[in-house]
Amino acid sequence: MTLTTPPPAATAAPTTAAAKIFNHPRNAWYVAAWDHEVTGKQPLARTVAGVPLALWRNAEGRAVALADACWHRLAPLSQGKILGNELQCPYHGLRYNSTGRCTAMPAQETINPSAIVPSYPVVERYRYVWVWVGDPDLADPATVPDMHQMNDPSWAGDGETIHADCNYQLVLDNLMDLTHEEFVHSSTIGQEALSESEFDVTHEGNTVTVARWMRDIDAPPFWLKNMRDKFPGFEGKVDRWQIIRFEAPATICIDVGVAKAGTGAPEGDRSQGVNGYVMNTITPETDRTCHYFWAFMRNYCLDSQTITTQLRQGVHGVFAEDEDMLRAQQRAIDANPEHEFYSLNIDTGGMWVRQILERMLAAEGRPSAAPAARGGA
Amino acid sequence: MTLTTPPPAATAAPTTAAAKIFNHPRNAWYVAAWDHEVTGKQPLARTVAGVPLALWRNAEGRAVALADACWHRLAPLSQGKILGNELQCPYHGLRYNSTGRCTAMPAQETINPSAIVPSYPVVERYRYVWVWVGDPDLADPATVPDMHQMNDPSWAGDGETIHADCNYQLVLDNLMDLTHEEFVHSSTIGQEALSESEFDVTHEGNTVTVARWMRDIDAPPFWLKNMRDKFPGFEGKVDRWQIIRFEAPATICIDVGVAKAGTGAPEGDRSQGVNGYVMNTITPETDRTCHYFWAFMRNYCLDSQTITTQLRQGVHGVFAEDEDMLRAQQRAIDANPEHEFYSLNIDTGGMWVRQILERMLAAEGRPSAAPAARGGA
Amino acid sequence: MTLTTPPPAATAAPTTAAAKIFNHPRNAWYVAAWDHEVTGKQPLARTVAGVPLALWRNAEGRAVALADACWHRLAPLSQGKILGNELQCPYHGLRYNSTGRCTAMPAQETINPSAIVPSYPVVERYRYVWVWVGDPDLADPATVPDMHQMNDPSWAGDGETIHADCNYQLVLDNLMDLTHEEFVHSSTIGQEALSESEFDVTHEGNTVTVARWMRDIDAPPFWLKNMRDKFPGFEGKVDRWQIIRFEAPATICIDVGVAKAGTGAPEGDRSQGVNGYVMNTITPETDRTCHYFWAFMRNYCLDSQTITTQLRQGVHGVFAEDEDMLRAQQRAIDANPEHEFYSLNIDTGGMWVRQILERMLAAEGRPSAAPAARGGA
Repeated sequence: MTLTTPPPAATAAPTTAAAKIFNHPRNAWYVAAWDHEVTGKQPLARTVAGVPLALWRNAEGRAVALADACWHRLAPLSQGKILGNELQCPYHGLRYNSTGRCTAMPAQETINPSAIVPSYPVVERYRYVWVWVGDPDLADPATVPDMHQMNDPSWAGDGETIHADCNYQLVLDNLMDLTHEEFVHSSTIGQEALSESEFDVTHEGNTVTVARWMRDIDAPPFWLKNMRDKFPGFEGKVDRWQIIRFEAPATICIDVGVAKAGTGAPEGDRSQGVNGYVMNTITPETDRTCHYFWAFMRNYCLDSQTITTQLRQGVHGVFAEDEDMLRAQQRAIDANPEHEFYSLNIDTGGMWVRQILERMLAAEGRPSAAPAARGGA
Repeated sequence: MTLTTPPPAATAAPTTAAAKIFNHPRNAWYVAAWDHEVTGKQPLARTVAGVPLALWRNAEGRAVALADACWHRLAPLSQGKILGNELQCPYHGLRYNSTGRCTAMPAQETINPSAIVPSYPVVERYRYVWVWVGDPDLADPATVPDMHQMNDPSWAGDGETIHADCNYQLVLDNLMDLTHEEFVHSSTIGQEALSESEFDVTHEGNTVTVARWMRDIDAPPFWLKNMRDKFPGFEGKVDRWQIIRFEAPATICIDVGVAKAGTGAPEGDRSQGVNGYVMNTITPETDRTCHYFWAFMRNYCLDSQTITTQLRQGVHGVFAEDEDMLRAQQRAIDANPEHEFYSLNIDTGGMWVRQILERMLAAEGRPSAAPAARGGA
Repeated sequence: MTLTTPPPAATAAPTTAAAKIFNHPRNAWYVAAWDHEVTGKQPLARTVAGVPLALWRNAEGRAVALADACWHRLAPLSQGKILGNELQCPYHGLRYNSTGRCTAMPAQETINPSAIVPSYPVVERYRYVWVWVGDPDLADPATVPDMHQMNDPSWAGDGETIHADCNYQLVLDNLMDLTHEEFVHSSTIGQEALSESEFDVTHEGNTVTVARWMRDIDAPPFWLKNMRDKFPGFEGKVDRWQIIRFEAPATICIDVGVAKAGTGAPEGDRSQGVNGYVMNTITPETDRTCHYFWAFMRNYCLDSQTITTQLRQGVHGVFAEDEDMLRAQQRAIDANPEHEFYSLNIDTGGMWVRQILERMLAAEGRPSAAPAARGGA
């Protein structure tokens, strides 16, 4: 469905919703870790949607997510030892199996039947370990967001994790409107064409798409370099695209690229261009911090580890510019709890994202706004 | 008017006013920055009386103070770019002129008429940029406190800025009673004569003056060095003076010096002495931090940059001793919210300062005490 | 009296008492410092049971504990100067004698009779300076806990102070159940026999004793080394003991050692073994921090400074492992204020300790639980 009217919040009327601190849905799959981070050697501590977890692999190689606090005295299980199919508490040696049930206690034969720590549903997909911290009866692996480019053989690439000092919603805002590239990333991917060109916003179910085409323009430095990797010595104008696809609650995959100008890319023939996917999925940690997993996948020069590394380093530099901005924005929001926010045309995609998140939170019977900052105002 | 009775608070009765955390008047000029800190190259972030500001110079060279948060998403304008007469937001490129009105928005032709950030009155005087964050209708440049020695050709010298971890009122206390030099600064300017000599307190309008003369004493190390700069090989006794002048809300200029003993300095002939002015002006940042701008100006050896540097370094060392004490005092006040304070004779000047500040705050309809510390007690 | 029934809290029923943040009794002697830390050269700042103190020695060599805040403006006396029998404030020079009475004020002859800072009862015993911050009328030196091994000529050894980031009660828990050695200290003193062997819990008045004997076992590395210090070339099995004695509110002395197996140690003949005392006394600083004073005393090779140093270093390494665990446990308790705690058999000694502390707090008319963490949940 194509957007014909702006979403309710994108009007001239002020809306505090625009920058309030968003709650996160609990009934959702979130990435807890890259698959290689979870091993059978020692557990990994990570907080997902407010829940501290001890992540480990059991003797069958299956990833397990237990609450990171021993039933007995709350010692962190993530500092314990993996013993085959069991995780041993580092303080008094209580052992837990993959379901979280205690199987051994020190100096006693009988085990209290209440001795259980929560174990959370886990799915491994697209090189990530996804965890569901909400109602386990609703945890359907079919609802893991689509990130198939991560391990599809037609695509190659790599990424990193950013620990961002802001509410996850600010990262979604950042990615749903790429106009900011012109100002934040002017030396790499920014260019004036971004704020001058039109864009198209559509939404359907729990997805929102923002598409922008810029025709017959100069390639910015990042893209010129990539064109020359595929077409040595390339010079000339390009057609550039950015097709942003959000899938609730927090995954945004962006189809990006440039092709030689006028060779038919907008109509579907991308053979004279280079194409990448910026894969992003954001995991709320606390109300004011998140884990931001990203990768850059490409469909050319698949075997070149050099290009994989160059692209990862390049995007690393670009995203570092965003980190500073997001941290500053979070601080300003906490310092101005009464600010009335207005939205611009460029915010249309982000406004639809908020609509979907508010619907999900309402279905859980929870408000969309997290509590105001302690120490704000 | 000479003080004939002690101020109400300087009696034997306890007064919590003596060390409560003071509010700061809003209707007042505060120094935001040294003039050279505010440029047309990149904006400066500084918080004045609780208000975060982006300070910059426009194309005419005029200093401008805008609120440091973009109307759109609160991104810090102090991280933006100065483009002639406009400041551009670092996130989405909205531009503001010197009055704070938005003049450009990305990807749209029309500009929301509400798109304004606050712009604050600015005066440049005495090598400082002064800002008024209160009611703009009351911002009269004639009420900027007198610090004329800062750029009067009969005086030479330089200074620095201290970021002090205490309420601004504690710095005022520190400067209104120089008895503390004997204990805090014993290796440089302290001497027993300070607590043994009498002093005279007067007040008029929004000023308070504390004058102390010490006759026929040894010069402490700092002053002996200065006498020898002007009178090579000087030895012997001196007459020493400290005439402290407070001008509300937070400027204290101290006429200090020594002259050869018995040559008539107390009567007005300072020709056989050296004279300096310790120029201090304190800008509240938060309830518990402040910007402390100081300089040391002298009226001899005007052309010697060496002496300017030596004096600045010397005072730097002295004031570092105060910083530690002020931080410790602030911590102790927060930890003892119920403490009943009594005042000594030496506090008379400081008590009159409080009276004037309380009067200013009452005129603004605000209490004199800021909220107690979170985490105190 | 031997325990025949478990203490009330050591049942299958959950008890939030098990890990709540404990208040500390005020009417008790706590170690403020090692005797050598308190000198007549410069005062020592230390907070005991929530009270910031300035500790110093007067001209007679007697240790004095004054509140660390000047009567006048709360400047820290611990940064002042010791002048014979008086302590001088570092800010304005007010002087206090050993009873806390002000004896001199700057620039005035008369001294306000209210000018007093609290002075707390002090006892020097067992190489420590003990302070009583509660009701001074109850401060009886006869109630200082027994730590006579510290300066009894039959024992030799040394120790250190740990600043632990947890409520003092968590350290008591840690020491009352040494099963944790098997998991936390597996490379030095831990061994499986610990959780496999039985133990005996008794209590009387304000003491609790937990005794454990492990017969005919291998000596763990720490003890094997010590046996060989006394019996060069020793090999073979040992009988090992741990006799933990708690004396309220926070002293735990542990009789530890091993002897050649079957030579009669359990029956009282320890001549074929090595014996040490782990001397521990914990001083609450705040609700969530404490000073943990420990020493390791031995009754063999008394003259060897090498062995003293080796033992101090060895225990230092062991206790560093506990520090990490205690900090993690405190953080988890604050993050899980609603957690229901259950106790295991191994917690029996710790449960009796809680009973005694609750009795002491009730006698002071105070609740046993300190306020929940700000920022918890």
